[in-house]
Amino acid sequence: MKPVRIGLLGCGTVGGGVIQLLEANATYLASRVGAPLEVARVLVRRGEKKRVPELNRALVTTKATDVLEDESLDLIVEVMGGVDPARSYVERAIQSGRSVVTANKMLLAAHGPALVDQAVAAGVDLAFEASVGGGIPIIRVLREAFASDWVTSLSGIVNGTCNFILSRMQKDGLAFEDVLAEAQAKGYAEADPSLDIDGHDAAHKLVVLAMLAFGARVDADRVPTEGIRHIAASDHAFASRFGYVIKHLAIGRDHGDSIELRVHPVLVPKDTMLASVGGVLNAISLEGRALGPCLLSGRGAGDMPTAVSVVADVVDVARARRNGTGGLTTRGIQLAARELRPLAEVKTRYYLRFQVYDRPGVLGRIASDLGACGVSIEKMVQEGRGDVSGLPVQIVILTHEARESDVQKALAIVAAYDFIATPNVVIRIEE
Amino acid sequence: MKPVRIGLLGCGTVGGGVIQLLEANATYLASRVGAPLEVARVLVRRGEKKRVPELNRALVTTKATDVLEDESLDLIVEVMGGVDPARSYVERAIQSGRSVVTANKMLLAAHGPALVDQAVAAGVDLAFEASVGGGIPIIRVLREAFASDWVTSLSGIVNGTCNFILSRMQKDGLAFEDVLAEAQAKGYAEADPSLDIDGHDAAHKLVVLAMLAFGARVDADRVPTEGIRHIAASDHAFASRFGYVIKHLAIGRDHGDSIELRVHPVLVPKDTMLASVGGVLNAISLEGRALGPCLLSGRGAGDMPTAVSVVADVVDVARARRNGTGGLTTRGIQLAARELRPLAEVKTRYYLRFQVYDRPGVLGRIASDLGACGVSIEKMVQEGRGDVSGLPVQIVILTHEARESDVQKALAIVAAYDFIATPNVVIRIEE
Repeated sequence: MKPVRIGLLGCGTVGGGVIQLLEANATYLASRVGAPLEVARVLVRRGEKKRVPELNRALVTTKATDVLEDESLDLIVEVMGGVDPARSYVERAIQSGRSVVTANKMLLAAHGPALVDQAVAAGVDLAFEASVGGGIPIIRVLREAFASDWVTSLSGIVNGTCNFILSRMQKDGLAFEDVLAEAQAKGYAEADPSLDIDGHDAAHKLVVLAMLAFGARVDADRVPTEGIRHIAASDHAFASRFGYVIKHLAIGRDHGDSIELRVHPVLVPKDTMLASVGGVLNAISLEGRALGPCLLSGRGAGDMPTAVSVVADVVDVARARRNGTGGLTTRGIQLAARELRPLAEVKTRYYLRFQVYDRPGVLGRIASDLGACGVSIEKMVQEGRGDVSGLPVQIVILTHEARESDVQKALAIVAAYDFIATPNVVIRIEE
Repeated sequence: MKPVRIGLLGCGTVGGGVIQLLEANATYLASRVGAPLEVARVLVRRGEKKRVPELNRALVTTKATDVLEDESLDLIVEVMGGVDPARSYVERAIQSGRSVVTANKMLLAAHGPALVDQAVAAGVDLAFEASVGGGIPIIRVLREAFASDWVTSLSGIVNGTCNFILSRMQKDGLAFEDVLAEAQAKGYAEADPSLDIDGHDAAHKLVVLAMLAFGARVDADRVPTEGIRHIAASDHAFASRFGYVIKHLAIGRDHGDSIELRVHPVLVPKDTMLASVGGVLNAISLEGRALGPCLLSGRGAGDMPTAVSVVADVVDVARARRNGTGGLTTRGIQLAARELRPLAEVKTRYYLRFQVYDRPGVLGRIASDLGACGVSIEKMVQEGRGDVSGLPVQIVILTHEARESDVQKALAIVAAYDFIATPNVVIRIEE
């Protein structure tokens, strides 16, 4: 039977994993697709680098056109990463009528909607399971399991670096800087960790999720995004005392007339499933109008989990190709530029930590400023004995539900007082 | 465009939900399938019963042959439940070359492998996402996301009744009988609850999961199955003290030469995700050789979650039908009568609770009997003051990993002593 011929763009650890999985499961995959899967051409940057032994060296090229202009190829698998030149390669593949499987979240976040539009117009597939939550089949579930339902909200732990750092700080009472250094040593964080720990990576993934969950065409720059650098060991301790743990979440909600997207640390109740997602694991929790709650968890990154997701996409796309029914993965995706609800209008509960020099009236001052702005206090603790030691004391306040703009107004007032020792810490609470 | 014509067998709450979802999402679903979906015939038992307003009464019949012999129908959706006559209807549909979507776990557990064989032979689809974990897309994930991977183990909370009862007992320190009565009042447990609380329902679902995860053709009667009637409030309290919660799990492992399947209560560590699955929620945790851990959670039952899963299957099957590529859902399933590892050979850790009359030497007696049988003790507590009150005391022992047959041998010896007040409680521990 005529094989489905695959052009592989990139042959690093994920690409090598794809080659290994295709070879190890060749018979089974052929029975699923209805034809053998054949890696027919492999683009690499450096031809001399060591690769997996399963790779047939004769297929390797360093010239992109050898792959992109090879008309015998049925589909293109892009696992090179980065926005450029991946974008132009993927676009050329789509325009030449070939389906594409990609694991590239940066590409998807930056140009996902445009690429989906192009794929729909060309009647080809664009599958990207591995772009969000590496080994978690979240894209497939959104695309297929929710076919007759509406996602009303989602919240996800989608950055393994943040989750590793927060989990470790919480469990062992360590400082952010120390855990970051450990994460870097272990390979869980980059030398320049900003993309992860400042929340940008999570925002990229949220944009991809919002495309499928809410049909939204959103620019990642417009998603309110906070990282985890400002979270102190004491925040974990206070959170724990109130029955919460701190997680870095990507949150989306469909309000009908608008959608709400935001990425920031969150206090989540200890006994919830998201709270128990530890280490580098990822998890995405969805709420469907008819389906109710649905949570998926697994490895968010890693070569083999990502490769498994890529191959699952390859099977879908290859089968559609063979049956002459391309466009399976993009069919029904209707993207619109949906209105984003400003963060200022979001209503939630808040954890506020103030580090203050303990003088008479300080607590009353903070409480009345909050009250004057319409922010009502649910719980409060003060810790430390500044009156004795001269060191600042910590005041932690949990608010009832309040409007973000009201909270920010009150915090701006409080921040100006000279009894404030360090910047205030604000963490939103989600139940 | 020519619609895909659906024959619906059964129109209770799930069937009504399917009709509502097909109607509410008609345009979107048609774009996914490539043709409109039309409910063309509906078999009910009692014609006069009240149904969802979306049902066109003219389509209703009480004669099965009106549906099964209608050659204009493309696919059959079976949501009537029960083994008979559902089995013969599904078989007739398959034999007449029509694809089938079913939500019927009893049917699948009893005759799943045979029905899959028939569907493969006929080249039609047999999709059954809704048969396990109602609103959890576990079948789809096993079938598609794991296409290039091997499931090495799975463990699932697959019975909502058991999970509701255990969660409530644990949270509020209540007795089994009281919570069962509450569950029955709330509709979470049947008047005759045996199918659920004695573990049979979970065993049925495990058989269906084992079919997809391990390619195993297993008879549910051969799965070692225990329920939760013997779990006392004190077991929850002791488990909690040791850092565990008690969950009722369906467990499967692939040992290569054999598979291990069992259904029983389990002590799971408090900080794991399975431990935090509360109430009637279900969850299934998989371990893939390449993918690593993957957990899915959601509503295990309920009309609308189940209907959403049925419609997701309908979309897949209808699309395959329209493209002339039936057999998508069964393609690649290769079932074999795999060897079942006997429970006696299973090795795990154990929680043992003995209720004894406190006489000198009792503790030593139990400890040495366990030791003589090769069961080594990790932790032990004794509670109650039998020496003063004359009432029995509780001895709880956590063992190191031991062989089931050795534990049972020791327990048989201990059970015969006259200082034993009530039958011993044995709960396996999974980390």
